Amino acid sequence: MGGAFRFTRRVEFCETDAAGIAHFSALLCYMEQAEHAFWRFLGVSVMADLGDGWHLSWPRVHVECDFKGAAKFEDELEIEVAVERIGRSSLTTSYTVSRDGTTIATGKTTAVCCKVRAASEMASMEIPSDLRARLEDYLQQGDGRKA
Amino acid sequence: MGGAFRFTRRVEFCETDAAGIAHFSALLCYMEQAEHAFWRFLGVSVMADLGDGWHLSWPRVHVECDFKGAAKFEDELEIEVAVERIGRSSLTTSYTVSRDGTTIATGKTTAVCCKVRAASEMASMEIPSDLRARLEDYLQQGDGRKA
Amino acid sequence: MGGAFRFTRRVEFCETDAAGIAHFSALLCYMEQAEHAFWRFLGVSVMADLGDGWHLSWPRVHVECDFKGAAKFEDELEIEVAVERIGRSSLTTSYTVSRDGTTIATGKTTAVCCKVRAASEMASMEIPSDLRARLEDYLQQGDGRKA
Amino acid sequence: MGGAFRFTRRVEFCETDAAGIAHFSALLCYMEQAEHAFWRFLGVSVMADLGDGWHLSWPRVHVECDFKGAAKFEDELEIEVAVERIGRSSLTTSYTVSRDGTTIATGKTTAVCCKVRAASEMASMEIPSDLRARLEDYLQQGDGRKA
Repeated sequence: MGGAFRFTRRVEFCETDAAGIAHFSALLCYMEQAEHAFWRFLGVSVMADLGDGWHLSWPRVHVECDFKGAAKFEDELEIEVAVERIGRSSLTTSYTVSRDGTTIATGKTTAVCCKVRAASEMASMEIPSDLRARLEDYLQQGDGRKA
Repeated sequence: MGGAFRFTRRVEFCETDAAGIAHFSALLCYMEQAEHAFWRFLGVSVMADLGDGWHLSWPRVHVECDFKGAAKFEDELEIEVAVERIGRSSLTTSYTVSRDGTTIATGKTTAVCCKVRAASEMASMEIPSDLRARLEDYLQQGDGRKA
Repeated sequence: MGGAFRFTRRVEFCETDAAGIAHFSALLCYMEQAEHAFWRFLGVSVMADLGDGWHLSWPRVHVECDFKGAAKFEDELEIEVAVERIGRSSLTTSYTVSRDGTTIATGKTTAVCCKVRAASEMASMEIPSDLRARLEDYLQQGDGRKA
Repeated sequence: MGGAFRFTRRVEFCETDAAGIAHFSALLCYMEQAEHAFWRFLGVSVMADLGDGWHLSWPRVHVECDFKGAAKFEDELEIEVAVERIGRSSLTTSYTVSRDGTTIATGKTTAVCCKVRAASEMASMEIPSDLRARLEDYLQQGDGRKA
């Protein structure tokens, strides 16, 4: 479903571990960063202000990732983001992380649209219609783009 | 397969995010920390020295996690570790993260036994027989223990 | 000024880097975690709820650290916290990180008492009198304690 | 001493904390990332291969930072790097982090040139003459550049 948005990210030293490679959690964070860059590309922030002290947030309810190879310090990675499914309040996205055309990892996440206030209030909500329209417009155009 | 090993972990401030909850990647790291505590409980380090500058490492080839609730700063979480499958060189482990008996997240990982040297050499290897014996002994005893 | 509060922390794998040691930022985070444990020991949370959606926060305005040695994966570190100065709205704290009695790092931070609401509102405030009293009581008793 | 090298970095969500701002440790990591980008600009990697399984590493022996303001999710920060002092085996560097021309933080670090092998061998060494020459050439040219 839809084309792929591309985001590039260099592996930083603080993201490597004592096995000499990027820690697995770093790759999952790159996927999230690519998703956030995708929202910026659509013209909105993943933490958009909703007024009255509330803002949007998209906590993950599902994450999965298969690692095919290791990324190392200073590697330049390309993360492709594809929208898999737009639900009532959820968004399923898939990712391919590659270096010089070789796939390092593939992943999929499902995030739920929530409103958040202070440190203690969070409630799921329907994806705002403006955001849904931006996602659907993007999918209709269908071709990949670069951050 | 087998009983559950239990590890406790408090959510630290640096692991929270601007939505006021533990970042999803923190929960995946807690699962890894619980797995490493499990190996210590078995009497070995997940990075055991193999001599000649080589040491063991267990990079993940698969990670998946479902989030049922949010963990907050200072929450005390309990992570249960269960061994799902011992392969020739891989180990599949499942996790349940809970707070006061309520499940926050469940996850599963597959890690591959590797030997690592310096920052650039890594090769998969059979799980050393001593480590395999410890895993199998643990599974035969079958009941959960606490870190 | 005052005795030392002690907190212990094991170096986790995700906190190591490709040099095979705990990343320097991990040690600074351990110091913060020790400070938060110290507040819990005093009976309050560093993020105490202030009502009306506001909560306390103590952003750092100054951090310094000298590293004397390297900490490695699975090292058990002891972090000593000593209160250096209680200002009108600031708190200066010093830290000694050691392993088996050998100092790994020493540090000092100054944090400012703030109230925070949502993701966008933050203002410094006087240290609440209840918190100040707890700090001063602790300093009068003067002897170190363990988390 | 010398001009300033500039590096830009966006604040990512995983680097924010429950106070709604970039965690202080993230800013210290951005400074390190800027230093590593500076080395790449000079044509070498901070982890350059030394042969025989050894590679370079520059562990910090001193870090200090003053925070003047808060950085938030999606802020685009500029980090200026200036070389303060080139010792026999140490390098002292200062940093200014700003957003839209407003200073967020200033910092200084001293790192020591070391050779590292596997997870357990690390020894300080003189800064290799090629690296020293690149640093000195840069300082003689004196004007700032952008990554």
